[in-house]
Amino acid sequence: MAIRAGVVVTGTEVLTGRVADRNGPWLAEKLRELGVDIGHVVVVGDRPDDLESALDFLAGTGVALVITSGGLGPTADDLTEQIVGDWQGRPSAVDPALEQRIGTIVERLMARRGWRADPEATAAGVRKQALVPAGATVLEPVGTAPGLVVPPADGRTGPTVLVLPGPPAELQGMWAAAVATEPVQRALAGRAELRQETLRLWGTLESQLAATLRDHDAELGGLEITTCLRDGELEIVTRYAPPEQAAYERLTAAVEADFGDTLFSRGPTLDDLVADAFADRGLTVATAESCTGGLLAARLTERPGSSAWVLGGVTAYANSAKEELLDVPAEVLAAHGAVSPEVAAALAEGARARFGADVGVGITGIAGPDGGTADKPVGTVHLCVAGPDGRQAKSLRLPGSRSAVRARSVVMAMHLLRVLLLGGPPA
Amino acid sequence: MAIRAGVVVTGTEVLTGRVADRNGPWLAEKLRELGVDIGHVVVVGDRPDDLESALDFLAGTGVALVITSGGLGPTADDLTEQIVGDWQGRPSAVDPALEQRIGTIVERLMARRGWRADPEATAAGVRKQALVPAGATVLEPVGTAPGLVVPPADGRTGPTVLVLPGPPAELQGMWAAAVATEPVQRALAGRAELRQETLRLWGTLESQLAATLRDHDAELGGLEITTCLRDGELEIVTRYAPPEQAAYERLTAAVEADFGDTLFSRGPTLDDLVADAFADRGLTVATAESCTGGLLAARLTERPGSSAWVLGGVTAYANSAKEELLDVPAEVLAAHGAVSPEVAAALAEGARARFGADVGVGITGIAGPDGGTADKPVGTVHLCVAGPDGRQAKSLRLPGSRSAVRARSVVMAMHLLRVLLLGGPPA
Repeated sequence: MAIRAGVVVTGTEVLTGRVADRNGPWLAEKLRELGVDIGHVVVVGDRPDDLESALDFLAGTGVALVITSGGLGPTADDLTEQIVGDWQGRPSAVDPALEQRIGTIVERLMARRGWRADPEATAAGVRKQALVPAGATVLEPVGTAPGLVVPPADGRTGPTVLVLPGPPAELQGMWAAAVATEPVQRALAGRAELRQETLRLWGTLESQLAATLRDHDAELGGLEITTCLRDGELEIVTRYAPPEQAAYERLTAAVEADFGDTLFSRGPTLDDLVADAFADRGLTVATAESCTGGLLAARLTERPGSSAWVLGGVTAYANSAKEELLDVPAEVLAAHGAVSPEVAAALAEGARARFGADVGVGITGIAGPDGGTADKPVGTVHLCVAGPDGRQAKSLRLPGSRSAVRARSVVMAMHLLRVLLLGGPPA
Repeated sequence: MAIRAGVVVTGTEVLTGRVADRNGPWLAEKLRELGVDIGHVVVVGDRPDDLESALDFLAGTGVALVITSGGLGPTADDLTEQIVGDWQGRPSAVDPALEQRIGTIVERLMARRGWRADPEATAAGVRKQALVPAGATVLEPVGTAPGLVVPPADGRTGPTVLVLPGPPAELQGMWAAAVATEPVQRALAGRAELRQETLRLWGTLESQLAATLRDHDAELGGLEITTCLRDGELEIVTRYAPPEQAAYERLTAAVEADFGDTLFSRGPTLDDLVADAFADRGLTVATAESCTGGLLAARLTERPGSSAWVLGGVTAYANSAKEELLDVPAEVLAAHGAVSPEVAAALAEGARARFGADVGVGITGIAGPDGGTADKPVGTVHLCVAGPDGRQAKSLRLPGSRSAVRARSVVMAMHLLRVLLLGGPPA
């Protein structure tokens, strides 16, 4: 029987989408690494009743541990500590030593930022953040809010609740200490290893994969297989206990047999493959982007250490910028228009030449919502990557919004780089 | 009594964070616009029991409507239709006319992409996607999956369930038709208008705001106020029924009185303010980015119509690119180093000159995790915006990860643009 946990993400700003939740997914992955299964992530606003009902719900699903994120700030709408304490039968009181430590942190923070503040207001906020349910374990603050481990009061049953702050850096910074506490270890005793592996296909429909999975159903018994089509990539993620390793190898063999021409990765993401290929081959890259407006450069440079192989890029919206910064010949622009395969190739070569890079990428298109014509409708995108081994080019008509066209164009550019550098399934 | 709804987001890929959920927040905002209150968004994996327990939980909170997203694909792990049908007491069967319509869509899609497929596998997927609970209302597919409106079976009580596909473009494209159906209208009858307004402060701590809210507590009775500190911006979001308009005006006056020097917006986002200022003043902009690697250009060009005022930008990672593409003098680089206020200013002026833009932005810094020194640790960032009315510059030492340093630098650049173009609270 697997040990299960549940997550409650609090905050009206998360519930209403003003802030995207990053804690639920992060916690789910960390729990999986610990061999703990997760069934639900519940997002609730800053309303006491809604948080209580979420705790009741998760307790009812039989979880051993509930993790909450958020609601530990100094404002009155942040109520997680008090609600969790009451729910576990452990009344809250200010911990004076903790109050002093938080006070020191807040003073230092405000001095560093040069912010003025009413001392009384600050003290009230610190006092609120130093509230602790009787008998709970305090996790030292990473920002200003402490975390808490709150088991059920003596004589009660139910899950232990791990209360963590909302800012992802604070929550993540507190995780190791939280897992090491005695009550969390006790709650998670008896967990077992759970493996997770991923296969990635480019250009296969889910329905085709479904047929293969049905054909092999009997040999794949102990695997939990989920598939997800995203940006044209079909991900097959499989979770299984170690004794099912042979079944996983049968799955891999079946996918290779049926989809060898679209299986581009047995694990690493597209970004991993491209970055490692640049690093391994000692090649550099520069970008020339029109409709994607810098998104490809931003994606390539998101990776630590990318300065070793990314020399830079130009976002050239204006035609004059294409000519002057990337040497796209005026006659090519005049003859074919800015959105054309010829200009995509000239952009790629211009980026290579201007930055002195081994590989150049050119992207030109119409992201919309305006600017389309009968001939070149919104979604028309031309891409070219040029390198020492030749070129890869692609012309697309993408559906969807401006964001979708831009995002999908960047994915296609990454696949063209993959094929240029590594070969394998076509982009 | 407010009409309430709940949301269930399905998919192991969402639960485990491989795909970020965009549907929960989008649905929450749409429901708010309709005057429907939302208490919980529950994320569940592709396990029948977990979806059922989530439906039971939301029904128990007294909601009139449950909206599900996802789980309508052709693979065996997609089970939403069948589980919702069973849960409402409405057994599923293939709708032959719908099966034919989906078949036509899938054929067209595959022809367009040039994908080969085993016809039998395709037909099985289509047949699965054409399953409909008895008596449910079908919403025509935007992609390949239809949506469904599934009220409780005759003689049963409980919420109506609106079943929508997972891909955000499909879910959003189906929304208007879904809301217009008779069973959804019936479920939401009696809803009332709910207003939402936002105030935005730059450089005020939550604890200070908390003191102001406490001081005015008695005058702000009917308002639901939530505050959120994000990227240094303190957002105050208030929801209220129309009769509470006067209370909201009292809140605005109190915030203006106490925080007039940091209140930079009474509604529009930072991006709205900057974009509108460029458009209104007829000015153009170009960027020169080092550590942010194109993120600022990508953010500025995300906006429809931005080609009217964004001329382009250069991502200059290599020093040679800073010299050759942005005219940063080699002696300035040698004297002050690439990460210096002088180089930030030279980058801003270089972008202006090379693109012929009215305003130039220069960003240089050390995003980490490597590359820091004792003198210039990771997180050191210098920014400069230069325009016809002068310059705004800022030097920072930012905490956090590579992503955090990059993201926060872009936010600061946007605030510098705001101050350059509009004045107001300092960046």
